[in-house]
Amino acid sequence: MIILNTSKIMKITVCRKAHFNSAHRLANLSWTKEKNLKVFGKCSYDNYHGHNYELIVKLTGEIDPETGMLMDLSILKKIIKTEVEDVLDHKNLNLDIPYFKNLIPSTENLAIFIWNKLRDAIKINCDLSVVLYETPRNFVEYSG
Amino acid sequence: MIILNTSKIMKITVCRKAHFNSAHRLANLSWTKEKNLKVFGKCSYDNYHGHNYELIVKLTGEIDPETGMLMDLSILKKIIKTEVEDVLDHKNLNLDIPYFKNLIPSTENLAIFIWNKLRDAIKINCDLSVVLYETPRNFVEYSG
Amino acid sequence: MIILNTSKIMKITVCRKAHFNSAHRLANLSWTKEKNLKVFGKCSYDNYHGHNYELIVKLTGEIDPETGMLMDLSILKKIIKTEVEDVLDHKNLNLDIPYFKNLIPSTENLAIFIWNKLRDAIKINCDLSVVLYETPRNFVEYSG
Amino acid sequence: MIILNTSKIMKITVCRKAHFNSAHRLANLSWTKEKNLKVFGKCSYDNYHGHNYELIVKLTGEIDPETGMLMDLSILKKIIKTEVEDVLDHKNLNLDIPYFKNLIPSTENLAIFIWNKLRDAIKINCDLSVVLYETPRNFVEYSG
Amino acid sequence: MIILNTSKIMKITVCRKAHFNSAHRLANLSWTKEKNLKVFGKCSYDNYHGHNYELIVKLTGEIDPETGMLMDLSILKKIIKTEVEDVLDHKNLNLDIPYFKNLIPSTENLAIFIWNKLRDAIKINCDLSVVLYETPRNFVEYSG
Amino acid sequence: MIILNTSKIMKITVCRKAHFNSAHRLANLSWTKEKNLKVFGKCSYDNYHGHNYELIVKLTGEIDPETGMLMDLSILKKIIKTEVEDVLDHKNLNLDIPYFKNLIPSTENLAIFIWNKLRDAIKINCDLSVVLYETPRNFVEYSG
Repeated sequence: MIILNTSKIMKITVCRKAHFNSAHRLANLSWTKEKNLKVFGKCSYDNYHGHNYELIVKLTGEIDPETGMLMDLSILKKIIKTEVEDVLDHKNLNLDIPYFKNLIPSTENLAIFIWNKLRDAIKINCDLSVVLYETPRNFVEYSG
Repeated sequence: MIILNTSKIMKITVCRKAHFNSAHRLANLSWTKEKNLKVFGKCSYDNYHGHNYELIVKLTGEIDPETGMLMDLSILKKIIKTEVEDVLDHKNLNLDIPYFKNLIPSTENLAIFIWNKLRDAIKINCDLSVVLYETPRNFVEYSG
Repeated sequence: MIILNTSKIMKITVCRKAHFNSAHRLANLSWTKEKNLKVFGKCSYDNYHGHNYELIVKLTGEIDPETGMLMDLSILKKIIKTEVEDVLDHKNLNLDIPYFKNLIPSTENLAIFIWNKLRDAIKINCDLSVVLYETPRNFVEYSG
Repeated sequence: MIILNTSKIMKITVCRKAHFNSAHRLANLSWTKEKNLKVFGKCSYDNYHGHNYELIVKLTGEIDPETGMLMDLSILKKIIKTEVEDVLDHKNLNLDIPYFKNLIPSTENLAIFIWNKLRDAIKINCDLSVVLYETPRNFVEYSG
Repeated sequence: MIILNTSKIMKITVCRKAHFNSAHRLANLSWTKEKNLKVFGKCSYDNYHGHNYELIVKLTGEIDPETGMLMDLSILKKIIKTEVEDVLDHKNLNLDIPYFKNLIPSTENLAIFIWNKLRDAIKINCDLSVVLYETPRNFVEYSG
Repeated sequence: MIILNTSKIMKITVCRKAHFNSAHRLANLSWTKEKNLKVFGKCSYDNYHGHNYELIVKLTGEIDPETGMLMDLSILKKIIKTEVEDVLDHKNLNLDIPYFKNLIPSTENLAIFIWNKLRDAIKINCDLSVVLYETPRNFVEYSG
């Protein structure tokens, strides 16, 4: 028989995947065009490019014995839709999202933006982390 | 040269993916049909639906210098087959698995069921965690 | 310069992916339990199992020059939802779908069922084919 | 022993996958903003969105017995890079590609644009078709 | 109601995915090392490299009304195992497969080798085609 | 408003995926052929087999506020190419890599080899971990 550290009993992580399609460009507006091109390469081109972003939202907490679930799914889905998809999908991150007016919309910064919005909106007692794929080969993980 | 914290030297995580196809429904049998429909949505329909479950089994421990591997693969594969696939594949979780007679077969509870069975069967000195995909968009992680 | 067979000019195939989760079992009800087990293996178990079905709907026709698209997407999405997802998602194919009362709900027969429903509902001038994945390793293609 | 129709002997299809990330918007510039929103939905938003496009280039022809290959790969890779990736990657299809100045950059029209550029550049005797994924759920196939 | 060309009624394509892991190198043994390096690049290195090959076997024919399936799956699986997996898995294509003693084991030639072996072994009345992935980005399709 | 443990603020993990194709065999050279076959199965065959390895490199550290990124991507890409791809791609791990002359090139040992090479080459202040897929079903994670 396995003896578990009681502080870990029934802690589980639930993950939901979402996606949105956005345009952006990477550029430090205080730099010259040449320096931006040197650091960010094609990502700095003036007219924007875009991505099919994939987002994984991970909640860690205890299971509700009445439902067998960590959180009521209909609530979580609504939060992800309202806080992330409705805000970012089919938008230009640089032009449409005030948060990125003076902040580079890198995958790192975008993951933090999403984490903060979800952290404010998820009211249950749980840890939160997000994984954000910019492409299948580039992604970030953020846990606050 | 890198100096490592000696407590971490040679600790590695080995992951094996398996899959099984099962039917289930989500319902709290002490609730009304209406309340189950409100909380679980279509997952509460009477006649069951099903999933292609994907399971990742992760073992963390030290490498056996004789084999370069954490665990003899032929043993691990046999354990996953005996403890998980033979038990759950092409079964109805609610009807065929006594453990779920009075427990909702949510992904969370199913991951814990699998973890407990594997934890009892894996005899080497290692940590265990499982990742269980109900669909490509819904999955849970459990480490005991 | 390429000279094209004029009958092929502007013919293009547009593909939309959908998914649904259903339970089913495979059994010829006029056979003994033993014969069903011999032919269908675990797929014949009494209490059903299930799958995350993936469906690709392919339409081949001419592009509407006003939209640059083969078909108004909002209409196509509504048709797939009404004809396929609302009918099959979270259902038991054997018990809930009258079409399969006396017909084995194999991937082959299910693909034909879906094709017929879509063929009746899609009113534009186009060819139709469907690809239906029962699992990532088993799938069928049907074009009428 | 299999007797083959001699006209088919040694005809084979070779497929190469590539990808590029671009921004675009869908709008018929002769329509009102309201009509564009009604037909194209969020895809018509003013400030562009974007995608990770996946492209599959398929060549059908005879194998060169000296190499066992349909076409010298180093040449094919260079053609795809020059004709597609260098032209479209990290670009805004509406603003940066003159071909789409007055043509809606739908997946359909983009696939035809790519097919025409590749058809002109591939000099060996073969058939050509392309598959273009705008997202994992929306894609088109075009064969000229 | 749809009127179908009767010659097409009930024709369906069933697809099964398999995989095997093999080593190989690409070289025309009548060429110099330099020419092989120029044409085949790193694929010509002396000591072999290898791939996780993915194979899709496609059968097109009529559904057996007794089973709802094109072919008894237990037979098809055994054929793929005997003819392809047991022969190629964990083998060196150049050294272990006599067919490739004097033939370059390109993806093209390997697909034809597999198609011929399956064509001889599958006894039901059906068309056969194979898709062979050498990597997720390079694959071939062959239909005889 | 969320109050964060200050030691965690702005720590983020950035992940880059790479791949390489190699041949190898698993065998303890001090064992008999029979014992190797018993422990390693087909992986011990004399003439090597191979894999499409997928590598995920994960760096955890603080974001550079000037770029919004953890590390200059052009530098990271060059390091992965120089330290991993140029060394391992299209190579025979047993024959071409001196490190594996007397060490079994298991996925575990290969992940440690890669981790050590990257750890020496990445000069920024960050934690490093690697995930190495030998096949889609077998992979390891190593963090030093």
